Amino acid sequence: MKTEVDHRLRRSWTAEGGDAAQLPARALRWLTQRIGALTESPAGPAPTVPVSALKEETHADLVALLGERNVLLAPAERLGRAGGLSYLDLLRWRGAGELQVPDAVVLPADPEQVQQVLDLCVRHDIAVVPFGGGTSVVGGVNALRGDKAAVIALDLARLDKLVSVDPVSRIAVLQAGVRGPDGERLLAEHGFTLGHVPQSFERATIGGFAATRSAGQASAGYGRFEDMVSSVRLATPRGEWRLGVAPASAAGPDLRHLAIGSEGTLGVITEVAVRVRPVPVVRRYEGYVLDGWERGSAAVRALAQGRVLADVTRLSDTDETEVSLSLNAGWKTAALRRYLAARGIAEPCLLIVGWEGASKHEFSARRGAALAALKAAGAVRIGRSLGESWLRGRFSGPRQRDALLDNGVCVETLETAAHWSELSRLRDEVRSALSDSLGSPIIMCHVSHAYETGASLYFTVLASRDPADPTGQWAQAKKAACEAIVGLGTISHHHAVGVDHAPYLEAEIGSIGMDVLRAAKAVVDPSGILNPGKLGS
Amino acid sequence: MKTEVDHRLRRSWTAEGGDAAQLPARALRWLTQRIGALTESPAGPAPTVPVSALKEETHADLVALLGERNVLLAPAERLGRAGGLSYLDLLRWRGAGELQVPDAVVLPADPEQVQQVLDLCVRHDIAVVPFGGGTSVVGGVNALRGDKAAVIALDLARLDKLVSVDPVSRIAVLQAGVRGPDGERLLAEHGFTLGHVPQSFERATIGGFAATRSAGQASAGYGRFEDMVSSVRLATPRGEWRLGVAPASAAGPDLRHLAIGSEGTLGVITEVAVRVRPVPVVRRYEGYVLDGWERGSAAVRALAQGRVLADVTRLSDTDETEVSLSLNAGWKTAALRRYLAARGIAEPCLLIVGWEGASKHEFSARRGAALAALKAAGAVRIGRSLGESWLRGRFSGPRQRDALLDNGVCVETLETAAHWSELSRLRDEVRSALSDSLGSPIIMCHVSHAYETGASLYFTVLASRDPADPTGQWAQAKKAACEAIVGLGTISHHHAVGVDHAPYLEAEIGSIGMDVLRAAKAVVDPSGILNPGKLGS
Repeated sequence: MKTEVDHRLRRSWTAEGGDAAQLPARALRWLTQRIGALTESPAGPAPTVPVSALKEETHADLVALLGERNVLLAPAERLGRAGGLSYLDLLRWRGAGELQVPDAVVLPADPEQVQQVLDLCVRHDIAVVPFGGGTSVVGGVNALRGDKAAVIALDLARLDKLVSVDPVSRIAVLQAGVRGPDGERLLAEHGFTLGHVPQSFERATIGGFAATRSAGQASAGYGRFEDMVSSVRLATPRGEWRLGVAPASAAGPDLRHLAIGSEGTLGVITEVAVRVRPVPVVRRYEGYVLDGWERGSAAVRALAQGRVLADVTRLSDTDETEVSLSLNAGWKTAALRRYLAARGIAEPCLLIVGWEGASKHEFSARRGAALAALKAAGAVRIGRSLGESWLRGRFSGPRQRDALLDNGVCVETLETAAHWSELSRLRDEVRSALSDSLGSPIIMCHVSHAYETGASLYFTVLASRDPADPTGQWAQAKKAACEAIVGLGTISHHHAVGVDHAPYLEAEIGSIGMDVLRAAKAVVDPSGILNPGKLGS
Repeated sequence: MKTEVDHRLRRSWTAEGGDAAQLPARALRWLTQRIGALTESPAGPAPTVPVSALKEETHADLVALLGERNVLLAPAERLGRAGGLSYLDLLRWRGAGELQVPDAVVLPADPEQVQQVLDLCVRHDIAVVPFGGGTSVVGGVNALRGDKAAVIALDLARLDKLVSVDPVSRIAVLQAGVRGPDGERLLAEHGFTLGHVPQSFERATIGGFAATRSAGQASAGYGRFEDMVSSVRLATPRGEWRLGVAPASAAGPDLRHLAIGSEGTLGVITEVAVRVRPVPVVRRYEGYVLDGWERGSAAVRALAQGRVLADVTRLSDTDETEVSLSLNAGWKTAALRRYLAARGIAEPCLLIVGWEGASKHEFSARRGAALAALKAAGAVRIGRSLGESWLRGRFSGPRQRDALLDNGVCVETLETAAHWSELSRLRDEVRSALSDSLGSPIIMCHVSHAYETGASLYFTVLASRDPADPTGQWAQAKKAACEAIVGLGTISHHHAVGVDHAPYLEAEIGSIGMDVLRAAKAVVDPSGILNPGKLGS
């Protein structure tokens, strides 16, 4: 069965709200100049939707449990949960490669129904892929069937409630399907914020944040998502599992850290209790420029090790800064270039710093401490407009990617983290690997998460797409980058493992670690229905 | 075989350095008044040291591996590793109850030899109890044999080296047997500090800190020990296991948190890479007083939720404060009482706050922010002398405990942590449970570790010892306290699980959690030689 694919589904980001980005002609000219001729977007066949493998009996039992309207077999619905938003996923939508389409989509109403769906799937030998925002860029929600009779997407969209708020302890319990903006809206009614803002914020969910060990753009101020998790509630084939009873504990290994990052393989996260903070009363974003990558990363290190990081601290390397300036060409940018040249900045690296303060006094104190460190590190202040324009555009990356894909660009991101002493070497090696593999790509890099002992590196790659084998082109480049990362850094700082990074997990946690994960899975999911093929399971 | 017990071994804290504390007559009079007549210290039989069950063949193989001087069979050496420092352990030393004495003590030189010892123990069916400082107060180093032919204490004393320092990333690799003061001395040569200072600091080891999820007195400033761990290296019967490659990662579950807190059941920690910081240049400790527990804990909560906690933040409840003031009777204390009365403080709760600053400027900024919050919370400043006297005496608790035991006092501590909204209720319920069980004990309580979402509670209990059944007296009181804790807080905030808390672990992590721990153990330790009986294993 072939199905005409809804335009809504073929784009990564325009499904709900937000305009599709267009690339201005000037940007296209500039791109062509930098990476070579651009091919047309492939006009491959629309994705094929196979006949659902769900048996009538299974379907009937699911309908009896959830009601007709919460068990979806329509091709458009199934396609809507066929994978995430990696470049390879998007190519599949555009006809290059096979989409993995679930046999059905189920929408349980609450944690109890999630548990009942799992029990049913054990009985019927059905693989279950938990589906939140569908924003995985590592194949984490690809509908793999494993050795099961069929595979369903368990969409958590109806678990969209704020369950409770403890204003004294500043803990809120949110259901797993709550999306980023909805979570903030629900918490704001109580005067609180979560402060977790990854680039996928608009669509990603609380459960997904926990399942993937997400890190938000303001991780320096609010912490990574795992730092915010007070407790988790999971549905597993073995039954419900709750972890986390106190702000800190020495009651053996911290098993919350086994649930966090388990990517649907050890249970379906149904509720997360998170630490919340008062809605900030001051927000301030500013731009600074450092001369060259080494001085730039040293400045961020000084902020991190001096423990005066701004809540958002984001350093672009020379190439990323140059691309920003080139695409923002105009009299203001020209003036900025002249100003920087006059200040002796030969290789500008843009640093965005942002604070969200609970009071003006707190904000001023923290900003003052950071500015002193930045001044000592040789940073040149360029005012608030670049900081604010970053803030406005901080969710636009995925939209721009759609426009780039339309124009025949190979565009993808990848990320890692390493200790400070390895960071520049790791950046160099990943850049070399990508360059060697892709010809003359544009490789931009930034640090968006800094710690006392190291930092993340986030790469954006633009290349002229190989029309003959776009999938193979990127698969090869990604492999080269991953091999450069292994041994120097982590295979993922915040994108998770999914399918794409699974081959590199053992290098990081050892064969013992892999066996421990398998053993834990065998306890909670003896028949192996939970998200087959992810995390190397 | 009976052995005359060395006085050195019968005391918890005087083995290495430090004077035995004596109780002044005034304190004894005061205690008698408060808790009733004190019994004589029991003059029970000296501990029995059974004949070593180690077979000659095993002994010969151990000697061949480690050398004669590193395989100890002498009763005094075996007794020296027969358990830790809980009240029950100390009673056993004093003749009440059976000590669990290892059949031998082995002292490997390095991580490789630790691995070889484990391999040998698998072949010879020998249980292995990793032994660091021997400061466990939960039975964590009791030499339980499980179903094995014999049990050895694997003493890590020779793994006492600083392996490497990365001054750029601020990471140091320390061997597991490095004791607190030695670690600080080794790091200070490079200008760094670890800043981990639990009460057991003088004897406890780096490996022990990791194995038990330790929290130091300055946890508000430096973090709990797990926050400092960059990577761990373990020897397991399955082979070596290394975890932790980056400052943060989304590469699946964070298995470091399975190793941290594993209490010797999932491997012997041989090296820990820790985050270090520059040696502070400013130290300042001060005392404040709040009126009553509710205002006191609200003040600490304000500091924690305002993220302006001092590095050390320690609030005593009314009873603990009263005991301090009573034992420090004198004209200064009388003057302090008059001053507090004049300031309207009816029920003084002492708050010690201490900062360790990397610069005067940083120190002043942080102190200023905390003081503003304290003032708003109604705290009355009482100057530096009480803060400094706490600092001087902060390791003296265990020594005082010896003196109390000599005088027939039942003295023990226990601890938990809970969310702020449950904290007062938890304190009340633990106090009731202890009072009901012990008659008219003195129960002191303090908060020494505060978080945005909650805090720890640390109880010190003094009661007149039941000379007929001192062990049963405390076992019953401890059981009552633990049952009060379950459901409201964690069974341990920083003392760990060991044997004593094992019955309560399942309530915290679920039967699934228990099975996951067992499954992980089966992967790394299929024959079950590692620390039998601990963590419920």
